[in-house]
Amino acid sequence: MQIGMIGLGKMGANLSLNLMEHNHAVVAFDVNKEAVKTLEEQGAVGAHSIEELVKKLEKPKVAWVMVPAGDLTEKVINELQGLLDEGDIIIDGGNSKYQDSVRRAEKAHQKGIHFFDVGTSGGMEGARNGACMMIGGDKEAFAHIEPIFKDINVEKGYLYAGDAGSGHFLKMVHNGIEYGMMQAIAEGFDVLEKSQFDYDYEAVARVWNNGSVIRSWLIELMERAFSKDPRLDDIRGVMHSSGEGKWTVESALDLQVPTPVIALSLMMRYRSLEDDTFTGKVVAALRNEFGGHAVEKK
Amino acid sequence: MQIGMIGLGKMGANLSLNLMEHNHAVVAFDVNKEAVKTLEEQGAVGAHSIEELVKKLEKPKVAWVMVPAGDLTEKVINELQGLLDEGDIIIDGGNSKYQDSVRRAEKAHQKGIHFFDVGTSGGMEGARNGACMMIGGDKEAFAHIEPIFKDINVEKGYLYAGDAGSGHFLKMVHNGIEYGMMQAIAEGFDVLEKSQFDYDYEAVARVWNNGSVIRSWLIELMERAFSKDPRLDDIRGVMHSSGEGKWTVESALDLQVPTPVIALSLMMRYRSLEDDTFTGKVVAALRNEFGGHAVEKK
Amino acid sequence: MQIGMIGLGKMGANLSLNLMEHNHAVVAFDVNKEAVKTLEEQGAVGAHSIEELVKKLEKPKVAWVMVPAGDLTEKVINELQGLLDEGDIIIDGGNSKYQDSVRRAEKAHQKGIHFFDVGTSGGMEGARNGACMMIGGDKEAFAHIEPIFKDINVEKGYLYAGDAGSGHFLKMVHNGIEYGMMQAIAEGFDVLEKSQFDYDYEAVARVWNNGSVIRSWLIELMERAFSKDPRLDDIRGVMHSSGEGKWTVESALDLQVPTPVIALSLMMRYRSLEDDTFTGKVVAALRNEFGGHAVEKK
Amino acid sequence: MQIGMIGLGKMGANLSLNLMEHNHAVVAFDVNKEAVKTLEEQGAVGAHSIEELVKKLEKPKVAWVMVPAGDLTEKVINELQGLLDEGDIIIDGGNSKYQDSVRRAEKAHQKGIHFFDVGTSGGMEGARNGACMMIGGDKEAFAHIEPIFKDINVEKGYLYAGDAGSGHFLKMVHNGIEYGMMQAIAEGFDVLEKSQFDYDYEAVARVWNNGSVIRSWLIELMERAFSKDPRLDDIRGVMHSSGEGKWTVESALDLQVPTPVIALSLMMRYRSLEDDTFTGKVVAALRNEFGGHAVEKK
Repeated sequence: MQIGMIGLGKMGANLSLNLMEHNHAVVAFDVNKEAVKTLEEQGAVGAHSIEELVKKLEKPKVAWVMVPAGDLTEKVINELQGLLDEGDIIIDGGNSKYQDSVRRAEKAHQKGIHFFDVGTSGGMEGARNGACMMIGGDKEAFAHIEPIFKDINVEKGYLYAGDAGSGHFLKMVHNGIEYGMMQAIAEGFDVLEKSQFDYDYEAVARVWNNGSVIRSWLIELMERAFSKDPRLDDIRGVMHSSGEGKWTVESALDLQVPTPVIALSLMMRYRSLEDDTFTGKVVAALRNEFGGHAVEKK
Repeated sequence: MQIGMIGLGKMGANLSLNLMEHNHAVVAFDVNKEAVKTLEEQGAVGAHSIEELVKKLEKPKVAWVMVPAGDLTEKVINELQGLLDEGDIIIDGGNSKYQDSVRRAEKAHQKGIHFFDVGTSGGMEGARNGACMMIGGDKEAFAHIEPIFKDINVEKGYLYAGDAGSGHFLKMVHNGIEYGMMQAIAEGFDVLEKSQFDYDYEAVARVWNNGSVIRSWLIELMERAFSKDPRLDDIRGVMHSSGEGKWTVESALDLQVPTPVIALSLMMRYRSLEDDTFTGKVVAALRNEFGGHAVEKK
Repeated sequence: MQIGMIGLGKMGANLSLNLMEHNHAVVAFDVNKEAVKTLEEQGAVGAHSIEELVKKLEKPKVAWVMVPAGDLTEKVINELQGLLDEGDIIIDGGNSKYQDSVRRAEKAHQKGIHFFDVGTSGGMEGARNGACMMIGGDKEAFAHIEPIFKDINVEKGYLYAGDAGSGHFLKMVHNGIEYGMMQAIAEGFDVLEKSQFDYDYEAVARVWNNGSVIRSWLIELMERAFSKDPRLDDIRGVMHSSGEGKWTVESALDLQVPTPVIALSLMMRYRSLEDDTFTGKVVAALRNEFGGHAVEKK
Repeated sequence: MQIGMIGLGKMGANLSLNLMEHNHAVVAFDVNKEAVKTLEEQGAVGAHSIEELVKKLEKPKVAWVMVPAGDLTEKVINELQGLLDEGDIIIDGGNSKYQDSVRRAEKAHQKGIHFFDVGTSGGMEGARNGACMMIGGDKEAFAHIEPIFKDINVEKGYLYAGDAGSGHFLKMVHNGIEYGMMQAIAEGFDVLEKSQFDYDYEAVARVWNNGSVIRSWLIELMERAFSKDPRLDDIRGVMHSSGEGKWTVESALDLQVPTPVIALSLMMRYRSLEDDTFTGKVVAALRNEFGGHAVEKK
């Protein structure tokens, strides 16, 4: 099949290579001309604009958008909306908010364009060698593009999940679970670290990956991380986050689902961004007022 | 009435003054001879040992223990156990664990000694001018000492709560609630601090204390604190804790009562004691492994 | 001063009575004609439409909107926006989202209308006899309406908090704190309830209100509640919520402020709305799969 | 090697079979004579008492205790302490509290007996076919029994973790992490369940196990569970717990490690044991008092 790939960053470039390796033709565009050139050398047909990319595609045209979520995705999809026609297909493979995908699908439908929202998990490595893709959109049109997903993912590593938005929603919830699992693992190692015992963390991660209930890819990654830096002495415990964890909590609040673990995982990340907190100052001030407990001066 | 006061720290000394002001006779002992001397000058009869203190008391002897909870309280009460006789009274006014009070009461009963566990809230100021006291112990014997509590506390500021241990248990839970309230207030001010608005916190605390649902002594204390240091610039947000919050959570776990708010209040205090966390390092290392997200080096 | 009151529900009617008692003239409108009539009998000038209400006001016209937050408030303010002129004043006294207030103020300013967002705490009783009001809006124009707030609130029970939106934001955070305080108190009583002791809760609330650190209006209300139903046997523990707690958590997420206590207070409310949870089913199913732990059948 | 197995419940029996399959000789005892007989038929040497079991073992005698943690384990180990001599070995393979293991090891050492605490993860299936074992105890003596662990576990599925107690501590923390992971997964499915989309949960679990970041044995188990009961309609969401999660939180409190996720996982389990809560009643009563919000009657 022929796919137009818009956005050749780490994810888009690796995905293109993955597609070509499975004998799909890729028409590639990026605002960065070097990125286009590099991919041309690896077998893609280059394009210098989205308009040119669309022209080079055969009907039904398939445009895969792999640009940062938010304004840029909005801009690209709006442009595609003008250039594509009935029966053509837009795939948003980025980390868009599911509400945006629902809205964009509705707009695309007005012109008879099929819209698919594809959430991807597995990182760059996954984009290149096979990841896990969660796909929302028109069920009937999906038959047309399913062969792509069969080829580029790990075995059974894709799911048509339902109506437009369901792919990004599922990816969002996946990341919420990921936040919770990561924090659970991290708390566990923190308890080990402060205990009276002297554990070899790499060995701990290894044994947990051999037959225990918590064996998982995340624990495998911890084994790998500890093999490089046995006590993580070199790094700081600052936990950044992208949007999906926050969106999961916001969705949970909208749906009135109690998600204490996912919410706390996110909040402990926020906490790690601060050296000192106003919350702490208020509590310290209160303790000083009623109990005469000394405050620590700056 | 005549009371033997053992332990003349901030709480014990203020309590003694409060007692004497209400025409009770105080026999006072502390390992710190200066403290004894000072109180003698204020009207108390001094003693140089617990043995001497007990000798100076008339039957039924009332010994009020006001020393740090734990080993020291254990030691003093054990000594009193040997010196007192049937019908005498031990009052433990410290912050003892309620299980210890239950145990000590049982032991005292074997000799016919009455044991009272008294939890106090209200700080030094309260000890001097009237606090809130929660009292567990023998119901019938309580009639004998009730006049003391009527005199030294604020109006309605004492409660015979039930069997031995119930006083310290009630005080423990009071402190658990206190932790939760303080953290709730602190989180609120933290949201204000990070908002787009520019609030005058002293004025905020003042208005909240005039007619709002959250009006409380703690908000009054915040008004006082902000009047001295309007943005708490001078202090660090390190939140220490004494034992009662932890005991409340431990009791909740034993009783299988979900107490997320009290538990999290305590855990955020622990979090504030650390500049960096192993939890954070583990999460940062994981994000680096699967997503190539850069870690912050030390 | 003369005030046009739009919305004569519990809050608006009580507020009108309060205003008239302090010698302010009230022009009153509600879609419910009975409500208008009742207030006319108590001294107000009635109006049969917002248009009529505006006509009956003298310059600068002051319209106080006291209708349910959301669509209805939007509709009323839009209508006022068309009817009022430069120098006139709109007061939104409902529980609007602060972002809406910021937006409405900007729109009002285009026509030279002053907009004030007023968050109120204290319930119906407060509306009638004096509450706590947190006010955002144009600082200079505030001087004109300040006498109203001085009259109708408890002493020091109003605060000009800053730019438009700051009043509703402050009220929102107040409610977030309220959620946390309430959950803290409730957890404490739950620990007492499951303990080995047999407490008289009304007496507990009373003693806590006499000299303890947690003395507060909320504990006073608990004393009142327990005086009517000593063990709350008659009611179910279903905890509903209006929007402000949720908005506080959402704002905290946007501002990256960790607010575990406020978030958990809200989530435990959501939890109380369900008899059984899908979360619980998943965990029970997992335990069955790996450990052979029996599940409870429906 | 020759091993004396005390306790032939699900775990002990399966472990014995596993040992014999790897050409180890098993002397087996249980208070249940049927269990002994069954195992004799499968190749073990039976014993009618712990004393007889010990007599039938050759020096250095290895006694593996596989009875319920707590009083029973205490009793059995005390008996073994009397029967064994210098150089003999006690293995506690149950879910004992690590503090008990530290204490028992110290006592065993007084007589020159080696003590090992072995935490096992992997369930019955693991006991039979290879699990994950975390082992604390005397390092030098471990060389003598290591071949057993090499034979009966999955590849790399055992770890000598350190001094006595470190095995059970590690197992405890493992379970704490397990609680957090399970709750995270469950919250995610709950958000899916309440969403506007209509997911096939078995398919969701399957796709997540193919290439996603959260792929893990627990998600595999969810796929299995959903294959049997697609929406878990037949079961109730009651989440029981054994002791390790609670011990992890208690240890975290002792060590002042903030573990919000593990703590909340546990507390949501407790919450699931109750149909109605006193916490909820208190909050509902408060809302009624200050806001006139109707309570739900029983």
